[in-house]
Amino acid sequence: MPARIHNFSAGPATLPMEVLEQAARDIVNFNDKGIGLIEMSHRSKDFIAVADETESLLREILGVPAHFKVLFLQGGASLQFAMVPMNLLGPGKKGAYLNTGTWSKKAIKEARLFGDVQVAYSSEESNFNHVPSPNEYQVDEDAEYLYYVSNNTIFGTQFHAIPQVAPMLICDMSSDILSRSFDFSPFGLIFAGAQKNMGPAGCTVVFIREDLLDHTPAGVATMLKYKTHADADSMFNTPPCFAIHVIGLVLKWIKKNGGLAALEQKNREKAALLYQTIDNSSFYRGHARSDSRSNMNITFNLPTPELEAQFIKEATALGLDGLKGHRSVGGCRASIYNAFPKEGIVKLIDFMGDFEKKNR
Amino acid sequence: MPARIHNFSAGPATLPMEVLEQAARDIVNFNDKGIGLIEMSHRSKDFIAVADETESLLREILGVPAHFKVLFLQGGASLQFAMVPMNLLGPGKKGAYLNTGTWSKKAIKEARLFGDVQVAYSSEESNFNHVPSPNEYQVDEDAEYLYYVSNNTIFGTQFHAIPQVAPMLICDMSSDILSRSFDFSPFGLIFAGAQKNMGPAGCTVVFIREDLLDHTPAGVATMLKYKTHADADSMFNTPPCFAIHVIGLVLKWIKKNGGLAALEQKNREKAALLYQTIDNSSFYRGHARSDSRSNMNITFNLPTPELEAQFIKEATALGLDGLKGHRSVGGCRASIYNAFPKEGIVKLIDFMGDFEKKNR
Repeated sequence: MPARIHNFSAGPATLPMEVLEQAARDIVNFNDKGIGLIEMSHRSKDFIAVADETESLLREILGVPAHFKVLFLQGGASLQFAMVPMNLLGPGKKGAYLNTGTWSKKAIKEARLFGDVQVAYSSEESNFNHVPSPNEYQVDEDAEYLYYVSNNTIFGTQFHAIPQVAPMLICDMSSDILSRSFDFSPFGLIFAGAQKNMGPAGCTVVFIREDLLDHTPAGVATMLKYKTHADADSMFNTPPCFAIHVIGLVLKWIKKNGGLAALEQKNREKAALLYQTIDNSSFYRGHARSDSRSNMNITFNLPTPELEAQFIKEATALGLDGLKGHRSVGGCRASIYNAFPKEGIVKLIDFMGDFEKKNR
Repeated sequence: MPARIHNFSAGPATLPMEVLEQAARDIVNFNDKGIGLIEMSHRSKDFIAVADETESLLREILGVPAHFKVLFLQGGASLQFAMVPMNLLGPGKKGAYLNTGTWSKKAIKEARLFGDVQVAYSSEESNFNHVPSPNEYQVDEDAEYLYYVSNNTIFGTQFHAIPQVAPMLICDMSSDILSRSFDFSPFGLIFAGAQKNMGPAGCTVVFIREDLLDHTPAGVATMLKYKTHADADSMFNTPPCFAIHVIGLVLKWIKKNGGLAALEQKNREKAALLYQTIDNSSFYRGHARSDSRSNMNITFNLPTPELEAQFIKEATALGLDGLKGHRSVGGCRASIYNAFPKEGIVKLIDFMGDFEKKNR
C-alpha cells in the first residue's frame, strides 16, 4: 500500500484508518458469523444489535435527551430540505430561515412549496462570507421554527453560538455534527448527512422531538413522514445498513479518543493553525469574516486564479488532495473534519509557505 | 475464519465472496490511490469513473435502450411507491395496479395519495398464492400505466411472462432484476432496490424512459422529481457511493459468469431442485401455485408450526441460515438469488429429507 494521502475533501471525507480496516473485515465476515455485514438481513438479531448500538452511542456522545427520537434515513440533507416543511408546515404555517449559504438557500426553495417562508436574514450580498449575530435579525412571532445551517461547507462559515429565539430551532448540522458539544434544548429537529464527521454517504441522521411526530398534515407519502420511521425504529423498510454500521465504528473511535470535548479542542487547534497562516500572509486571503470562520472548512484565495490552479496542482502532487474550492467561492478549501490529522495541516502550512516564497 | 454459512435471507442477501473481498480492499485503499472508496468525493474523477462504469455495465448486461435514463437513488423501493405516482399521476390521472402481494399493496396505498387507482386484479383472497395470467384482468383505457411487481418476495410468486397491455408498464423488479433477461420496450419505468441481486442496501436503481421526465406536476419537491436526478446524472446531491461501487463489482461478476442467460439457466435449475423436493413430499407444502412459482424465493410449510420452528432451528445449527418465512405466510422461505450457490440448495434438500424421515 502506498503512502496514504491527506484528503481535504469536503465530503465524503477522511475517516479514521482503524474504522476503515474494521469495516473491511466486517464486510467479508461479521463477528466471525460466517456472513458479511452487507449480506445480513436488517431484521436479524445481529444487525438490530448494530443499529441499537449506533443509536445508543449517538445518544451518549451527543447527550441526546430521551424525548428525542433518533432516525437513520436516506436521501441526504437535500431530502430533509423538503421533509422538514412537509412535516412541520402546511397551508398557512410559516417557517423562518437564516440564509447563510447554498444549503440554506436550497432549503428555503423547498419550504416555499409547503408553507410560508420568512427569510429573517441573508448574507448573500457579501457572497455568504459571514453568519449573523443574534441581534441582526428578528423572527416573525407566528413562525413555527427558525431554520439555520450550523456550518456552511462551501463558504467556510460557522455559527459559534446557537441562535436564541422564541420558536424552536431546526438545524442542518451536516458538516459540523460531532465536532463540538451543544445543548439540545432549543431544538425541535436536527439533521445531518453522515458523509463528513459521521461515516460514509448514504445515511442521514435525524434527531426529532417526539411531540413533533404528530404535526404532519394529511396526504404526505408514508416514507416522507417522520412518524413512519420513528414508529418502526428506522426499520420501516431496509435501512442503509452499511452506513449505520460505519457510523457506529466512528462513534466508538470518538469515544476512545476522549469524546466531543477532546475533539472540539483539537478541531479548534487544527483550524487556528491554518487561520494563523492566512492572517500572517498578504498572499493568502480568507473568504470568511473572522467572527464567522468555520473550524471544519477553511476557504481561502490566492492573488490570481492562475496561482490558485498552480497551488492546487503542486499540492496534489505532494499528496495534499481535494483542496480545490467550490465554484461559488473559487480558490481553495481545506476541509479538516474530526478524522483529519494535524500532520496533514502542518504539511499544508509548510507547503503554503514554500509556495508563497516562490510565487510572491 | 469459520466456515461460511449458507444465507437464505430474503434481503439484504448473499453476495459473491470475491465481490465482498474486493469491496473490503477498496474501502481501505481504492485502486492504490492512498484513499478509501468511502472517503472519496463523489465529484472526484475516480468516483465518477466508478459510477459511469456501474451504469454502463447495467446498460450492457440488461440491454437498456438508449432512450432510458439509469438513476441511482436512495430510499428503497418504498420511496418509489410514492415517487412513481407523484411524478406520473396527479389530479384526474389514473394508474392501474396488479395487487399480488405486500409490496404492490403498499404501492397502491401511496398511489391513492396522488391520483386515481384501478386495482385491475388482486390475488389477496388466496393469500397472494399466485399472479394473474393476462386474460384474467382488464386495464382501464384511461390508465396512464399498469404497475406490477415481477417477483413477490414474501409469497414466493413470480410473473413468468410480461403483461401485454396497451399502456406502458411500470415494474418493481426489486427481487428478480438481473436474474433473467427481458425486453424493455413495454416499460416506461422499472425500479429495483439493490439489496437482493445487485448489492448492499442503500441504493435503488431506476430505469426511466426519457420522455416521462417532463410529466411531473408542479409542486413536487426537488429531490422527488426524477428529472432532478436524470439531469444531474444521479449527482444532484451525494449519492450512495459505496452501494453504487458494490453494484459495479456484482455486475462484473455477472459478466464474468456468462451474463443473464447463464444466470437464468442456473436460477431455474436451483429452484427446480427445491420445488421437486417439495412436490415429491407430502410433508412439505409449497405456498405458491405451481404456475406462479418464484425462482428467487421458495415458500413452503410443514405440517405444524411446531415442526416449522424445529426445522428452522436445526437448519440454522447446520449453517442453513435465514429460512424463517415472513409472518404473512409463516413456515419457511428459501431465498436463492443469483449469488446463492447450488451447494447450499443441495445441503438444504439433504436436510429436508433427513428431517422428514425423523418427523413424518
